[in-house]
Amino acid sequence: MGERGLGEFEIIDLFRERGSFRHSWVQQGIGDDCAVLDMGGGRSLLVTTDLVVERVHYLRDVITPWQLGWKAMAVSISDIAAMGGTPRAAFAAAALEPGVDQAFLEALRDGMLACAERYGVDLLGGDTSRSPQDGVLCVTLLGTAASDQVVRRSGAQPGDVAFLGGPVGLSAAGLWALTEGREASERMDPEHRQALLRAHLEPQPQVALGRWLAERGLATAMMDVSDGVLQDLGHICQASGVGALVAGEALPVDRALVQAGALGCCKEPWRFALSGGEDYVLLFTASSDRQDEIVAGARHELGIELIPFAWIEPDPGLRIFGSDGIHNARPRGWDHFG
Amino acid sequence: MGERGLGEFEIIDLFRERGSFRHSWVQQGIGDDCAVLDMGGGRSLLVTTDLVVERVHYLRDVITPWQLGWKAMAVSISDIAAMGGTPRAAFAAAALEPGVDQAFLEALRDGMLACAERYGVDLLGGDTSRSPQDGVLCVTLLGTAASDQVVRRSGAQPGDVAFLGGPVGLSAAGLWALTEGREASERMDPEHRQALLRAHLEPQPQVALGRWLAERGLATAMMDVSDGVLQDLGHICQASGVGALVAGEALPVDRALVQAGALGCCKEPWRFALSGGEDYVLLFTASSDRQDEIVAGARHELGIELIPFAWIEPDPGLRIFGSDGIHNARPRGWDHFG
Repeated sequence: MGERGLGEFEIIDLFRERGSFRHSWVQQGIGDDCAVLDMGGGRSLLVTTDLVVERVHYLRDVITPWQLGWKAMAVSISDIAAMGGTPRAAFAAAALEPGVDQAFLEALRDGMLACAERYGVDLLGGDTSRSPQDGVLCVTLLGTAASDQVVRRSGAQPGDVAFLGGPVGLSAAGLWALTEGREASERMDPEHRQALLRAHLEPQPQVALGRWLAERGLATAMMDVSDGVLQDLGHICQASGVGALVAGEALPVDRALVQAGALGCCKEPWRFALSGGEDYVLLFTASSDRQDEIVAGARHELGIELIPFAWIEPDPGLRIFGSDGIHNARPRGWDHFG
Repeated sequence: MGERGLGEFEIIDLFRERGSFRHSWVQQGIGDDCAVLDMGGGRSLLVTTDLVVERVHYLRDVITPWQLGWKAMAVSISDIAAMGGTPRAAFAAAALEPGVDQAFLEALRDGMLACAERYGVDLLGGDTSRSPQDGVLCVTLLGTAASDQVVRRSGAQPGDVAFLGGPVGLSAAGLWALTEGREASERMDPEHRQALLRAHLEPQPQVALGRWLAERGLATAMMDVSDGVLQDLGHICQASGVGALVAGEALPVDRALVQAGALGCCKEPWRFALSGGEDYVLLFTASSDRQDEIVAGARHELGIELIPFAWIEPDPGLRIFGSDGIHNARPRGWDHFG
């Protein structure tokens, strides 16, 4: 990566290449949304750690401390959802910038606890420190799952369909509306603008969907969309040794994003939706034979409108289906070292 | 508080006062070195998260990336040792300052892995991000213990003796030797200087001692010395509802610290030893009836020279026994928000 420094995924590889797991309880080490540990009795422990760094993942001026607490908790809960697990216990470490006061801390705590309570999670510990300049939050989440129901990234098969648990690109458009699109977005339908801001500031991890899919054995591979749909689908394809053909212009795009696009957020909302990060909806693959059953079940049992958006192919790589034909995709999205 | 911002322990209280643990597997929540979760079958899971923040816990110029990796891992392993547990799995999150290169990362990883391997720990996951200015590491450690052998902070009884697992103050003197005492410390016996630097840069968590005490049911309360002996003994006393009388000038002080004191590190080495932080030796209490058995056992079975240094009393507060009589102690030590 030269002068730009190392990419996030190369850093993960750096650890993976030295990974030697000496304990027999390790069912999954580095390389998925969570590590998976055998708890005995057919149960597994899922563990994930996520960083939220000021000026990388958030800007102090555009997120309230309550929202920051919510988001830091939600990001880690989403990793448990992505394996089909039930989130149980959280550990929060916070390095806080100079000048934080009691009101800031209480709001940060209340946001964390509101999200934890919403998902049935106990906040059991943590660490605090001052930070000389930027705030850094690190939330570790423990979850549980039946060992034979844990959904990994590596099970996608040619012929599978890839689904999204909801619309994507809203979070990235929300960031636009909070920063360079601040004035332009004031001209949006207030409900639409609110939807973008909420997607960015108060993401809602899809724990119920993840469990529903896992318990029924419906998903062959799953993760959550944090780096952008194309990049994350690329991770599933790489882990599964397959490729995918992605609906391009045919991707259903949320009306709020269409409106933001018309006001300057992006030229092609479908393309923006495929590359914008931090959506925290689930991305999963399933046999095409079960597509109708899955879409109808999620609609009626969970009230979730799934979006089929790609088809798994045997050959590696991602291809995008557009109005002008099929093109190879260069996955773009968030690489926090980029 | 006030203009200084909030103290670390008040922040912990802020979370504790809202702690409501909805899952029955929670045996210990916020307020000890680790959270304790019931794994079934008489086994408990211990979980701890620790931050290591640049310009708060370390200075980039005086610690190598290998040492930084070692120390970040060791600090969390020490929390598992402090409950009598066996460390098992680590999750490392790293927000890294601009300009880190491949060599830095490999050395950081190798330091983490060297410490993990030394203590039988698998590094199973993590997260990486860039950081705009300061490096922040957050290591979460999972350990295990027999549920009936977990040693908490809250079991100290009047009549107990408090022990240290080794000499204290060396780490704080090591920091002195790396910073304002850089020139003066060059005049030290090289072995002594090396002992100080090693205590500060490559702490050795006392896992074997913690397990030895826990398995034999010898310790009534235990923690590791991270904030300074007086402050940490104060935590045990507060959690146990007791007080303590601390040996002052009679505290055995390591010769390396005595030499550093003579060169300007501190006026009273015994006082410095009681307040310096980041020692990562164990501090535990045990019935005075068993003092001889414990000291002899640790010496012969583990090669560890324990230091009895305080006596638990029924009345709250810490008192220090000096040549000029007994004084109330104002616990001093590291408060990372101070």
